[in-house]
Amino acid sequence: MSSIDVNSDLGESVAGIPVGDDEAILDVVSSANVACGFHAGSPHGISATVSQAAARGVTIGAHPAYNDPSGFGRRFIDYDPKQLADEVLYQIGALDAIARSHGSEVRYVKPHGALYNALVRNAEHAQAVIDGLRAFSRSVPLLLLPGSIAAELAVKAGLQVITEAFADRNYNPDGTLVSRSEDDAVVTDIDAVRSRVIEMATSGTVTARDGSTLRVDAQSICVHGDSPGAVEMAKAIREALDEAGVSVTSFA
Amino acid sequence: MSSIDVNSDLGESVAGIPVGDDEAILDVVSSANVACGFHAGSPHGISATVSQAAARGVTIGAHPAYNDPSGFGRRFIDYDPKQLADEVLYQIGALDAIARSHGSEVRYVKPHGALYNALVRNAEHAQAVIDGLRAFSRSVPLLLLPGSIAAELAVKAGLQVITEAFADRNYNPDGTLVSRSEDDAVVTDIDAVRSRVIEMATSGTVTARDGSTLRVDAQSICVHGDSPGAVEMAKAIREALDEAGVSVTSFA
Amino acid sequence: MSSIDVNSDLGESVAGIPVGDDEAILDVVSSANVACGFHAGSPHGISATVSQAAARGVTIGAHPAYNDPSGFGRRFIDYDPKQLADEVLYQIGALDAIARSHGSEVRYVKPHGALYNALVRNAEHAQAVIDGLRAFSRSVPLLLLPGSIAAELAVKAGLQVITEAFADRNYNPDGTLVSRSEDDAVVTDIDAVRSRVIEMATSGTVTARDGSTLRVDAQSICVHGDSPGAVEMAKAIREALDEAGVSVTSFA
Amino acid sequence: MSSIDVNSDLGESVAGIPVGDDEAILDVVSSANVACGFHAGSPHGISATVSQAAARGVTIGAHPAYNDPSGFGRRFIDYDPKQLADEVLYQIGALDAIARSHGSEVRYVKPHGALYNALVRNAEHAQAVIDGLRAFSRSVPLLLLPGSIAAELAVKAGLQVITEAFADRNYNPDGTLVSRSEDDAVVTDIDAVRSRVIEMATSGTVTARDGSTLRVDAQSICVHGDSPGAVEMAKAIREALDEAGVSVTSFA
Repeated sequence: MSSIDVNSDLGESVAGIPVGDDEAILDVVSSANVACGFHAGSPHGISATVSQAAARGVTIGAHPAYNDPSGFGRRFIDYDPKQLADEVLYQIGALDAIARSHGSEVRYVKPHGALYNALVRNAEHAQAVIDGLRAFSRSVPLLLLPGSIAAELAVKAGLQVITEAFADRNYNPDGTLVSRSEDDAVVTDIDAVRSRVIEMATSGTVTARDGSTLRVDAQSICVHGDSPGAVEMAKAIREALDEAGVSVTSFA
Repeated sequence: MSSIDVNSDLGESVAGIPVGDDEAILDVVSSANVACGFHAGSPHGISATVSQAAARGVTIGAHPAYNDPSGFGRRFIDYDPKQLADEVLYQIGALDAIARSHGSEVRYVKPHGALYNALVRNAEHAQAVIDGLRAFSRSVPLLLLPGSIAAELAVKAGLQVITEAFADRNYNPDGTLVSRSEDDAVVTDIDAVRSRVIEMATSGTVTARDGSTLRVDAQSICVHGDSPGAVEMAKAIREALDEAGVSVTSFA
Repeated sequence: MSSIDVNSDLGESVAGIPVGDDEAILDVVSSANVACGFHAGSPHGISATVSQAAARGVTIGAHPAYNDPSGFGRRFIDYDPKQLADEVLYQIGALDAIARSHGSEVRYVKPHGALYNALVRNAEHAQAVIDGLRAFSRSVPLLLLPGSIAAELAVKAGLQVITEAFADRNYNPDGTLVSRSEDDAVVTDIDAVRSRVIEMATSGTVTARDGSTLRVDAQSICVHGDSPGAVEMAKAIREALDEAGVSVTSFA
Repeated sequence: MSSIDVNSDLGESVAGIPVGDDEAILDVVSSANVACGFHAGSPHGISATVSQAAARGVTIGAHPAYNDPSGFGRRFIDYDPKQLADEVLYQIGALDAIARSHGSEVRYVKPHGALYNALVRNAEHAQAVIDGLRAFSRSVPLLLLPGSIAAELAVKAGLQVITEAFADRNYNPDGTLVSRSEDDAVVTDIDAVRSRVIEMATSGTVTARDGSTLRVDAQSICVHGDSPGAVEMAKAIREALDEAGVSVTSFA
């Protein structure tokens, strides 16, 4: 494998308050998961981020969420699936119009936060996201954690699924992420993250928490833009990939 | 003139609370100004209304508003024009995605409430609405009050403008609407409204408050769906037009 | 038992859209569960309802909810308990200030919708509501479904618990409500509801779905104000209690 | 004059996103204008800030705003005054309940952003704020710009008015602030700001833009906490006052 996608969550400013340094992260990634206004992101802030992404040739993905601005989309909400499907469609459509005004378009969908997490096991919400996306387009892929129920249902529904791995999250030997309640959930050492990312990109594997080698076969690597030190970490990841001769290129 | 458009505001339910009887009004109108979620309208409620409109062949228009859910979009907000333009684009895009999922699309834009009123004289907000619409499409018309600054600027910007008259609002001799603070702002007598509507549709005129005859040349007549007696009034208007041999047909 | 409380959810108008006929229901009840703005209710609408309640000597209770205006507080949200506790306190405080401006005050708390339902079994959310209430006052009771985990925890925390029964909901023999997914969840026959309410008020029992007699020992009866026919049903309930010589009086 | 109050806007985090460094600013000020949830500030974030303020003996003031979360309360909204009054009361009551849970209480009210600016000339909104505050308490003062219509109306209504000066804003010779559209609206040189603040605190004057000496007679000095370098500037201001022997003490 000589190329891989790198994605990050962007466009999440709220009421003019910046969340992360979008421009710095856009210099690192090939795909931007752009907030759609339901967990964060104003139309004007979204437009600015999309414009910067388009100028760099970064692929635009929709990052729809539960309608939970006060919780930043990080809390499970027991939605009626039909309402969820319509909200996913609404969010993708809104972002796509903004993307088109900058000569781009929505080329994939990666759900945000609690909705992303729900898709691992909640078949109703997974199907709702799929229904919402299919109502928009049948040729736009979903970016997901491998092994999720959503990935299975999406394939059944004829959608393309792109799988991702997390640059700085520790994995259990079964391929699930170490829970954030554990001390070693996040890998914070930059050199360790650099090694992991190169392993993901070149061998399609990652070293799990117990030292075993785990297949991840990720087509995209997720990096974070909103935590302290995030920009530095993201730049180090990109540098490591560049040095290893891995081209950072969108899957789309 | 043997045909005219009839439009009404629809899709404005909030949190499942109905606002007006959308299905009854959809049997009357040829154009539906569908809420886009910023003053009212959930994606699921919007989708239901759009589906019912599409099933009847009613044209879908976007009804964007200031982001003021607690004020139902009825209060002027001193927006930065660039933010307003992006919010108009966002709203149109969101609705268009829903409309396309029902085999339709956004075919015109009529701003809502305080934003509609602002367009009469506020050139900055008028230009922002025009910019937001043009970023979506240059072939989608604006539905406006004749004589507004927005109509003038829209024409300059190469957009088509459709003008409307109000079935149940009294006019001053200069063509402006009698202010709602006046006792005779609204015509409540059904027979009087029937006569006015036929006059608008067949002679392009309306009798102003002082008895003088005023040219309105409206391509569309606005009827209300959310006040007590609104459905009865709307049905009477449609019946009057039908009886007068005026075809109720969308301008789009 | 010669007296009982009757409570109903009020003050739930959104963006000026009325939800139910508050004045008609206020003529029936002794306690008003007043929305606090998180699921519904604007400060101005709340103030109008509180003013009308105070004028009739109706007791004011706070009706706090998950922060979910788009879902009308009817969806479970997986809150952090500390955030929930602070939101409950915020809501009670806001309503209390309005109540005091009308010479009244918050005299009890009844959670709304999905939060009310969560309190039956979710100990963390139950404790959060209790913590939020205790941060406001230790002498304000909670109005709850009997048998809920919240009732148990509230007593442990030194709070008074008032239990309620539902005038128009069918009961399983174990005292739980028949699920709304069942056809006979709601009793719609006015005469049947009248009989049930008199039985609740005079014998402290209700006839369960299987014909067995169930103790409910409710200190309050909940009537609905927002469904079609709600006002008629509420009036019939009040009339039945009056005719049976049962005084409708607040527990507070 | 040997003592003066120093105030700053705090508690403005949104959806967990920090806005400024509240703890650092709380070490500088004697009065905290705490967000009430309408322009910013979640109940949980507000509670954290109030707790930290209470622990330092910093006076709590309510910082109510127009209900404009997407605009951070920085845009004029053409409110109905009765709605505005009820929203001010709601916000003060909510914050007061949180403050009381930490052994403190709301001891003054300083409106936020566009509402603060409106009070200079908009008599209807000024009266609405006064009405909302008086419905809460007649002994809680308003913190205002001197010369505003609100100050005049508040005194008429029997409320105490505290006036403030801005540490880092340039003044016109007539006592108004230099508009933010001008290049020299904000004084960014730390030494200049130190001198100004000492002048304000010790002589009750400030040097206006044209070099003339202007009386300000401020009982409080406003420092900002949310701009780059704000904490450093705030600490320098405090240090300057301490060195000049001016005690930083709340007016309340």
